[in-house]
Amino acid sequence: MSVHQVLIAGQWRDADQASTFRADNPATKQALPDEFPVSTWSDCDAALAAATDAAALLRKLPGERIAAFLEDYASRIEQRAGELVDMAHAETALPVAPRLADVELPRTTNQLRLGAAAARNGSWAQAALDTKAGIRSCFGPIGPVCVFGPNNFPFAFGSISGGDFAAAIAAGNPVIAKANSSHPGTTRIFAVAAHEASLATDMPAATVQLLYRTSHADGERLVADPRTGATGYTGSRNAGLKLKQAADAVGTPIYLELSSTNPVVILPGALEERFDAIADDFSGSCLMGAGQFCTNPGIVVLLAGDTTEKFIAAVAQRFENAAVGTLLSKSVEASLQGNLAALQAAGAEVVVGGGAGTGAGYCRANTLLRTCGDTFLANAEALQTEAFGNASLFVVAADIEQATQLLQHLEGNLTGCVYSHNGGQDDAMYDLVADPLRQRVGRLLNDKMPTGVAVSSAMNHGGPFPSTGHPGFTAVGMPASLVRFAMLQSYDNVRPARLPRLLHDKNPTGDTWRLINGQWTTADVDC
Amino acid sequence: MSVHQVLIAGQWRDADQASTFRADNPATKQALPDEFPVSTWSDCDAALAAATDAAALLRKLPGERIAAFLEDYASRIEQRAGELVDMAHAETALPVAPRLADVELPRTTNQLRLGAAAARNGSWAQAALDTKAGIRSCFGPIGPVCVFGPNNFPFAFGSISGGDFAAAIAAGNPVIAKANSSHPGTTRIFAVAAHEASLATDMPAATVQLLYRTSHADGERLVADPRTGATGYTGSRNAGLKLKQAADAVGTPIYLELSSTNPVVILPGALEERFDAIADDFSGSCLMGAGQFCTNPGIVVLLAGDTTEKFIAAVAQRFENAAVGTLLSKSVEASLQGNLAALQAAGAEVVVGGGAGTGAGYCRANTLLRTCGDTFLANAEALQTEAFGNASLFVVAADIEQATQLLQHLEGNLTGCVYSHNGGQDDAMYDLVADPLRQRVGRLLNDKMPTGVAVSSAMNHGGPFPSTGHPGFTAVGMPASLVRFAMLQSYDNVRPARLPRLLHDKNPTGDTWRLINGQWTTADVDC
Repeated sequence: MSVHQVLIAGQWRDADQASTFRADNPATKQALPDEFPVSTWSDCDAALAAATDAAALLRKLPGERIAAFLEDYASRIEQRAGELVDMAHAETALPVAPRLADVELPRTTNQLRLGAAAARNGSWAQAALDTKAGIRSCFGPIGPVCVFGPNNFPFAFGSISGGDFAAAIAAGNPVIAKANSSHPGTTRIFAVAAHEASLATDMPAATVQLLYRTSHADGERLVADPRTGATGYTGSRNAGLKLKQAADAVGTPIYLELSSTNPVVILPGALEERFDAIADDFSGSCLMGAGQFCTNPGIVVLLAGDTTEKFIAAVAQRFENAAVGTLLSKSVEASLQGNLAALQAAGAEVVVGGGAGTGAGYCRANTLLRTCGDTFLANAEALQTEAFGNASLFVVAADIEQATQLLQHLEGNLTGCVYSHNGGQDDAMYDLVADPLRQRVGRLLNDKMPTGVAVSSAMNHGGPFPSTGHPGFTAVGMPASLVRFAMLQSYDNVRPARLPRLLHDKNPTGDTWRLINGQWTTADVDC
Repeated sequence: MSVHQVLIAGQWRDADQASTFRADNPATKQALPDEFPVSTWSDCDAALAAATDAAALLRKLPGERIAAFLEDYASRIEQRAGELVDMAHAETALPVAPRLADVELPRTTNQLRLGAAAARNGSWAQAALDTKAGIRSCFGPIGPVCVFGPNNFPFAFGSISGGDFAAAIAAGNPVIAKANSSHPGTTRIFAVAAHEASLATDMPAATVQLLYRTSHADGERLVADPRTGATGYTGSRNAGLKLKQAADAVGTPIYLELSSTNPVVILPGALEERFDAIADDFSGSCLMGAGQFCTNPGIVVLLAGDTTEKFIAAVAQRFENAAVGTLLSKSVEASLQGNLAALQAAGAEVVVGGGAGTGAGYCRANTLLRTCGDTFLANAEALQTEAFGNASLFVVAADIEQATQLLQHLEGNLTGCVYSHNGGQDDAMYDLVADPLRQRVGRLLNDKMPTGVAVSSAMNHGGPFPSTGHPGFTAVGMPASLVRFAMLQSYDNVRPARLPRLLHDKNPTGDTWRLINGQWTTADVDC
């Protein structure tokens, strides 16, 4: 079988390849038949050159043109749903249902359509008109965006289909997608559909481009190239921090979603009140998809006591009884094994699991670890090692004071949850823990596990470092996620006909929110 | 005379000092009498500890409390106006009028009051309520903010009085101010007034703290300390990039305003139409305040021809006839001399000036350099060396194609201007130059010099790297400048009584703009 082609400058063409690779089927550990190229810098350079041309054309296009592309693309994804689901299932072992076909795919097309709506409407650009000073501003496209997608959401966070892609395109930028090496075939099918949509809607040739893999050095060169406007990266902390260093050195924005342990605090009143429900809720959240979610609850804080001991036993039993999920790849399996060992070396004890999994594919046993507050405080950094997968660490604090104290040693996280008694008996404790937790997480939840990430205008899928690179931005939720891929552009005394349409006196759509002299309105400027 | 005290944790106290320093009077080159400490890390550490406590208290305060502080402080500045102006004049040689007393001081108190209004109103926090999903979000305080102010605006960008200070406090954060070493006495008076205002309005003890100077290593340690929420820095590129590297390594936001050459393109029709007016406009803008503005027009692009030659001669004459301003410090004088030499070494020729100034204080002659488009293209990086002060470089392009080409080699800048004919005869050329310029600047101007920076909600005093560290943020303009010092905080299923007031069903002020289910409104949530 021949090696698949890359998509550069609107053409499928042979890569300038250093080598080739194939993905595994994680359920069988067998290599899949398709062969993909590892591109050299020459492919990256060609993609950047083409993206630069595309960016100049794209920023002149009205939002409705970009919307038409995104909507056409979403429809083509639906037409190819069977093909996409089959390939993603083979490459990731994620279940067809409930998951790939009925959850992740609809979420993906929904995101693309929300991106289309945001592009068409233009409110995302936060147009501000100061008619007295003669100054007007809005966010405008930042230039070519490189997207590095993660392994765990082949559709909804995919480099050529997911949230970063939708946001970057909707903000008016071309995307250079770097496929995740664990699902190149899935990414290729998306690229075929995106390329067709691009042709059907007459978009600039290099609006979407695809490379399957590069060397790490070329990846760093790509994000730091002067032609790159910004980068979106979701994945491992080590690889992400190297890209961050490269981008930071040249002052190019990079939005990273890195590791997160998503602490959950369960207060004693809640445990007494809803023992079984919380045990079910936690176990389901932690083991769903073999725990391979960015917002998987990796650390649970409890107060020492009999009920807590019973709760740990109840969760342990659920972990033992639950099916062992298949992990996404050999490297996920190896990392999980290594990180569980690191946690044990740092003082965590195995309650259940800890060893090899029983499945035919890549897997580890469902694993529950525990430690006490003293040990956690003595070794807080190591005990926050993310064990990406079907595992969690329970930290049993001596009392609420110690629980509060250990929250102050948490790294930045995407989410933090507090379960408390519905009748108010935990309220004093809630007040103690909520404040330190709030400052360390992007999204604070009550009485709910963090694994659901609604595509909402009020969502924050982001958080303080190292969960992301900047605590002011969200990767999920339209239209807020678009501003990551935009620059603030002010127009001072610029002649009216030369202003972008968003800043004209007349509201460009009749429905675009603009801040006119300090008031949000969809009206025209009063003449 | 004893060494001045630092302000830490609400107390004026002796610094833990490594050494002391005094500022010069730039007009006389004589050291001023006051002696200030260079703090060791121990002072920084104490300030960070106190700021951490203050941050926890501040983020619980309603916006009106913060507003009351900022307004009280603004009034105290006005009461101390004479003292401040005298000290700043002695330390910077900036004119009393028009400048310190009648322009910069009112601008400063205006910014503080706009910050107060923003804090009281709360719209800056961009509250978003998704009532169906049960998710609400807003920006919240990021934690202790370190502010490093520049030498050129002792009031309006001062570390304890200027735009970064006002924005950081208004967003609900304590500030650790690092005085600019060229005007420590001015900064001290502000700190006295701020401390008094803090006591009068019952603010947390460490809401405002002041250190005069630290070692470079301690400055880097300060911005990278885990207790620091964010940093605002305005100043030299070299020092700023070192702070950026330190902050980036730990993922802490740093907002930098670095060098900018602020390119101005003068198209031939404009030159024919408004020759004298543009020569006056440019000369005034370039020489005002001895050219020591962040937005000083440092590069002017013209098309080769007789009128351009006459224009260069006309500007040269104005430069010769204009008084020579006093530079802010010995180091500004030395940098200007060095950077003019670097520009000449890179191929620029002196039209007028280039040598020593004729004043008694620190100064250099008003200097106009020129080069041609070919030379610029051959050495674009070196010819963009910022010559901070009363100097500018004219680049004479062979034709509009070359002018457009050289704009594509510009670094990121705060501003870019295009002068064109009022009757439309430059319009085709405008279209060629405006697009590449737009992508390289934060603020695009027409027919206007960039040195005026209005405090407007549509202002962008920011721009692509290296003019700033991130092209999505402005340092001037309320309320947009506040979000730099904030983190996005989402609340998912959080019980109503536990939400911040901004996210309650009821509009917290009756006048706060919030995005409720996709619509901007000042109304309550419909129950």
